[in-house]
Amino acid sequence: MQPTREDRFSFGLWTVGWPANDPFGDATRPALDPVESVHRLAELGAWGVSFHDDDLIPFGADDVTREDRITRFRKALDETGIVVPMATTNLFKHPVFKDGGFTSNDRSVRRFALRKVLRNIDLAAELGASTYVLWGGREGSETDAGKDVRAALDRYREAMNVLTQYVIDHGYDIRFALEPKPNEPRGDILLPTIGHALGFISTLEHSELVGLNPEVGHEQMAGLNFVHGISQALWQGKLFHIDLNGQKGPRFDQDLIFGHGDLLSAFFLVDLLENGGYDGPRHFDYKPLRTEDIDGVWASAAANMRTYLLLKERAAAFRADPAVQEALAKAKVLELSEPTLAAGETVADLRAADADFDPDAVGARGYGFVELSQLAIEHALGAR
Amino acid sequence: MQPTREDRFSFGLWTVGWPANDPFGDATRPALDPVESVHRLAELGAWGVSFHDDDLIPFGADDVTREDRITRFRKALDETGIVVPMATTNLFKHPVFKDGGFTSNDRSVRRFALRKVLRNIDLAAELGASTYVLWGGREGSETDAGKDVRAALDRYREAMNVLTQYVIDHGYDIRFALEPKPNEPRGDILLPTIGHALGFISTLEHSELVGLNPEVGHEQMAGLNFVHGISQALWQGKLFHIDLNGQKGPRFDQDLIFGHGDLLSAFFLVDLLENGGYDGPRHFDYKPLRTEDIDGVWASAAANMRTYLLLKERAAAFRADPAVQEALAKAKVLELSEPTLAAGETVADLRAADADFDPDAVGARGYGFVELSQLAIEHALGAR
Amino acid sequence: MQPTREDRFSFGLWTVGWPANDPFGDATRPALDPVESVHRLAELGAWGVSFHDDDLIPFGADDVTREDRITRFRKALDETGIVVPMATTNLFKHPVFKDGGFTSNDRSVRRFALRKVLRNIDLAAELGASTYVLWGGREGSETDAGKDVRAALDRYREAMNVLTQYVIDHGYDIRFALEPKPNEPRGDILLPTIGHALGFISTLEHSELVGLNPEVGHEQMAGLNFVHGISQALWQGKLFHIDLNGQKGPRFDQDLIFGHGDLLSAFFLVDLLENGGYDGPRHFDYKPLRTEDIDGVWASAAANMRTYLLLKERAAAFRADPAVQEALAKAKVLELSEPTLAAGETVADLRAADADFDPDAVGARGYGFVELSQLAIEHALGAR
Amino acid sequence: MQPTREDRFSFGLWTVGWPANDPFGDATRPALDPVESVHRLAELGAWGVSFHDDDLIPFGADDVTREDRITRFRKALDETGIVVPMATTNLFKHPVFKDGGFTSNDRSVRRFALRKVLRNIDLAAELGASTYVLWGGREGSETDAGKDVRAALDRYREAMNVLTQYVIDHGYDIRFALEPKPNEPRGDILLPTIGHALGFISTLEHSELVGLNPEVGHEQMAGLNFVHGISQALWQGKLFHIDLNGQKGPRFDQDLIFGHGDLLSAFFLVDLLENGGYDGPRHFDYKPLRTEDIDGVWASAAANMRTYLLLKERAAAFRADPAVQEALAKAKVLELSEPTLAAGETVADLRAADADFDPDAVGARGYGFVELSQLAIEHALGAR
Repeated sequence: MQPTREDRFSFGLWTVGWPANDPFGDATRPALDPVESVHRLAELGAWGVSFHDDDLIPFGADDVTREDRITRFRKALDETGIVVPMATTNLFKHPVFKDGGFTSNDRSVRRFALRKVLRNIDLAAELGASTYVLWGGREGSETDAGKDVRAALDRYREAMNVLTQYVIDHGYDIRFALEPKPNEPRGDILLPTIGHALGFISTLEHSELVGLNPEVGHEQMAGLNFVHGISQALWQGKLFHIDLNGQKGPRFDQDLIFGHGDLLSAFFLVDLLENGGYDGPRHFDYKPLRTEDIDGVWASAAANMRTYLLLKERAAAFRADPAVQEALAKAKVLELSEPTLAAGETVADLRAADADFDPDAVGARGYGFVELSQLAIEHALGAR
Repeated sequence: MQPTREDRFSFGLWTVGWPANDPFGDATRPALDPVESVHRLAELGAWGVSFHDDDLIPFGADDVTREDRITRFRKALDETGIVVPMATTNLFKHPVFKDGGFTSNDRSVRRFALRKVLRNIDLAAELGASTYVLWGGREGSETDAGKDVRAALDRYREAMNVLTQYVIDHGYDIRFALEPKPNEPRGDILLPTIGHALGFISTLEHSELVGLNPEVGHEQMAGLNFVHGISQALWQGKLFHIDLNGQKGPRFDQDLIFGHGDLLSAFFLVDLLENGGYDGPRHFDYKPLRTEDIDGVWASAAANMRTYLLLKERAAAFRADPAVQEALAKAKVLELSEPTLAAGETVADLRAADADFDPDAVGARGYGFVELSQLAIEHALGAR
Repeated sequence: MQPTREDRFSFGLWTVGWPANDPFGDATRPALDPVESVHRLAELGAWGVSFHDDDLIPFGADDVTREDRITRFRKALDETGIVVPMATTNLFKHPVFKDGGFTSNDRSVRRFALRKVLRNIDLAAELGASTYVLWGGREGSETDAGKDVRAALDRYREAMNVLTQYVIDHGYDIRFALEPKPNEPRGDILLPTIGHALGFISTLEHSELVGLNPEVGHEQMAGLNFVHGISQALWQGKLFHIDLNGQKGPRFDQDLIFGHGDLLSAFFLVDLLENGGYDGPRHFDYKPLRTEDIDGVWASAAANMRTYLLLKERAAAFRADPAVQEALAKAKVLELSEPTLAAGETVADLRAADADFDPDAVGARGYGFVELSQLAIEHALGAR
Repeated sequence: MQPTREDRFSFGLWTVGWPANDPFGDATRPALDPVESVHRLAELGAWGVSFHDDDLIPFGADDVTREDRITRFRKALDETGIVVPMATTNLFKHPVFKDGGFTSNDRSVRRFALRKVLRNIDLAAELGASTYVLWGGREGSETDAGKDVRAALDRYREAMNVLTQYVIDHGYDIRFALEPKPNEPRGDILLPTIGHALGFISTLEHSELVGLNPEVGHEQMAGLNFVHGISQALWQGKLFHIDLNGQKGPRFDQDLIFGHGDLLSAFFLVDLLENGGYDGPRHFDYKPLRTEDIDGVWASAAANMRTYLLLKERAAAFRADPAVQEALAKAKVLELSEPTLAAGETVADLRAADADFDPDAVGARGYGFVELSQLAIEHALGAR
């Protein structure tokens, strides 16, 4: 269960670097130098790190400071072999973004937000990132009177069109990934779920360059099935990146270690990612508990990877178990891949066919989902 | 506050006709003849009724019974002037649909479901319905092992492609409206929110014929802001129909009278529908409380319409209030309609401009959302 | 993992006997004879069954029917050795209870409800039950205007005082267990959580005879930590009985198989029950999925017991692991059992002591909860 | 709608004084001098202010600073006539409390917490406060392995016993009010609801001195009916204080202005408080939106009071409306105050009586809750 580069585990600098302040409490840990984070994560077996501009370079820093920070960071990357698969922008911490970035009611803020993103895209490209994440945590409202949502979506689209054109014009090998979240810090956030973001993306000029970075906890904060959401994102070719963590249902954003929330859903998620064609980073976006010191921080980083690997092993055993294959067949899970109409069949043919279909008889048949579900539980528990 | 035909209020036959059985209790009211419902709703000021096939014609009825029921129903429509703006299919009650209709693992069930829908589309067209709603309440799963969601979405798409081609081929003036719901009766339902359905629709062959029928309570069961969701649906040109009712957050599907759940959200919803370009039916999909007798049923039907009209009056006063207009201006709500980049402005222009932008100064400015929000509350309370 | 009588597993007759009707669908399975249920559950390794009066004897049955049903049931018990540790009353299915039983606004209904309970207590005593459960699923309201909650609690208390006096007067060896639930079927149910019921019980005349029957899913429908709730119930000496099942957070009442909801919480629950002094029945109150036929019903019954036994094994290994013991010590989990004031220490002593306490230094110490939590995950996964 | 001292409106210093930092963002407003807050609140019509020790005196301040701050505060109180009805302790901000105060696993922290509370009780008494609130926001856990909840409740009880004895010994006219909350900042907080706290209180040595300070949003974060909870607290004689604010269901703690969340519930709450015998402070515990400047802060303070007064007026009109009285009678709301058994009636009498009770006939009667509910809505909307 020792992670290797091949596992493609990555971490946001802001995860291990979180100083553990929360809405009711001060920081419990000192600031962490990104250089140290890169080295420690490399030692633990990680493959990549991601960053917000402000994680690396203090907001408003002068050019000398900026270059110094970037140089030190590059050096750490070079020394460790850690890659930067993804970068993103902090459009939520400074008071200027209190009503949003791309969709602030204040046009001057929207312009500033765009400039901030553009600048960091250049850095992302320079550092080799192929995914640029946009979490619009401040794009939203607390009162429906205060935000014209349709105008806001116009501006959101305008921003995405500008950004996609920008990477095209500069020949950057970068795709964008929107990260949905239903609420917190805003009362209601625009594009609150995987679905709303998918709908929005379909309206963009270069929608082929825009996909998703769904986060386990964000979708579960809306009580939604994350595995279903990821399935739809994959189905629409839009799973560009993923944020793995844990959450215990609708409440504040917990950012627990992966698997430390809904463990069964984590099992099915790993099963889907490993067997469903996703080949992007396994990226952890979590917060080490505020009760921990720096040892706990590194223990938590390791725990994320170890849990993933354990679940991967469990999922492989599940898929390989003949009893599971039999149960899948009995439940007709594979039959769902068969088109409902036969090749060349017309509606008229369909209506004429199956004259002897007996709804009562078919309705009485059992699907055996209980057996399948219990097999999954037992595999998750390592009991088969 | 007396509703008229011009208000375009419509009701599902299954709403007033619900016999008030629930998962823990038997029916408390006798079955209601659709003919009586049409007459009573007309007397109360409604404009239209909608129906599932099985509301009108018992499942499995022979052709004679079928024709008789349709004839009686048509007569009631003719006598009252009530129209049928929408129809839908019951793909959830009979045991045959226990694992879904369009996405049942059992192909024979999928075929049966399609035939059932096709047949009722013919009737819908015959009765003049222009919207055909599809609520996939059984399309989903209780265990992630039991449903290949990507295959299910393939089948869902296949079904929609068949149906849209069918109405095109037959020259029916019918558009489809998908009705999202996150869960209940299935553990997790496919296309759980407005957003997921919008994403799905973007993949369809005739996506122009497919939109949404969002329901207040369904979106609120996921803790989502319904007004935001409707705004996005309108923005994407997909608000084909709407189901008005009430719900108290994430819990079982309550189907309360409109306004009897989140009253403030109902106020903003009516404001949006009346001022946001929606001209479809104001359709109530609710359940008269199980504690009520038939008098309570008709009282509840009237209450839906009366609450809507009251909120419409409140919303008009809100928009007309100069203090509101001033607060909207102060909060820069209208400024959001102004593009972020000027006409013809390039990214280079943008990056060069606004050299004197001072984030701290702008971040210190107040938006005045509190004042705006309080004005809305006071208008809702009829206090201004 | 074969259950035995010593495991004290019991099932409600209404669980395996549920015909799988739901708010949107008809029954998918035929009625099940309680006699058959007793025999099949015995074969699967169960130890007991529980029942509502109406599970055994149809509502309103005449005395001959009643006696016949009881006789047949007793015979099955005798043949199998299955015991009846608990009985309860159906105060929710018949329309007469639509506004509640003990707290219906209609006094005649309250009187009828009391008589129905009293009659079944006699039968419970006759069959040897030592716990009598009261789930007040209809005690509540959909509008705050319709129920004077303080008067309702007066009536609830009155009912409990009558019932406790009754078992005392008759020398029955029966204690009562209230089963809290936040909502469904009523919009809001009185005594919605373990806590509210504990508060209520403290006001009763014979509070020593009244405890709780908490249900996993009911507490999780309010987003609450079930293990914490059970801990408080145990701490107050009020865990008289328990309903084991599964639920996926705030939504409709799912009644999944035990462990098929929040698996990690199920692990900690079994750990607590096995090591925390609870010696009552391990009672399953769940619903076999509507998609299943009768084979799936019995598979689901077996799955409940098997999952419990697996988790029991995992919990024992967790407690026995030296690494866990070390982590518990490091996290000072045991130190919490040490009184905060020393024996005989006064407040003045306390205020004078610890002059050198350094909040900053103590605040910087890590608790190591991450390590402990990860050890639990790995034990749950059977990976240590 | 101009508030006066007689309305007994009070505010926490930390409400208007919140600098608007949140988990994802920096403060948007400068610190506010408590002296200014007292003056401004007085001008707006408030009657009282409440405080945490650290709101007034910086954590760890020396005695000179402490005395200076207290002196300035007292002067502001004297100048304005503002009273201090309640005080409380900050046991959540400093890192030392990261695993709790009274129930930290670390005994030295528990001792420090007690000393901190004791010291501030002296100040509370000195300033005339009659209620001392305890919100145990850090008493809880993120993993069930990390907290022995039964030991934690022992320590919680120990602390309460020490504190109640302390006020008795010192002759302070102070009662304690526990403030429940389900989660945030801890993953799960002990005593998560009104109910759990009521249950706990029943175990205390001086339970007569310990009641509740329920907060609107905290109970609604668990999806619970706050009006029902307050009713039970009143019924048990335990509503010692109340925190009024707004929340939109299960999500992060929003602390919206009173009425800006569930408006209908706010209407029924004011109806209950005004007509249900509560005579304590109407205390607002909310956060002015982060988007606001200092003008918005004072506007938000005024909005809380104005909304309360509007709802009070609406509730009075509701109760006075003959149509409401008629509907209450029809719904038998008052009949619930009539004991179920007649005076002197025995169980035997009860069982013999009502021989002609016809469940089917009674079950068919309607309660008219729809009409009552709609009357409430229309009164809330100011439409009658």
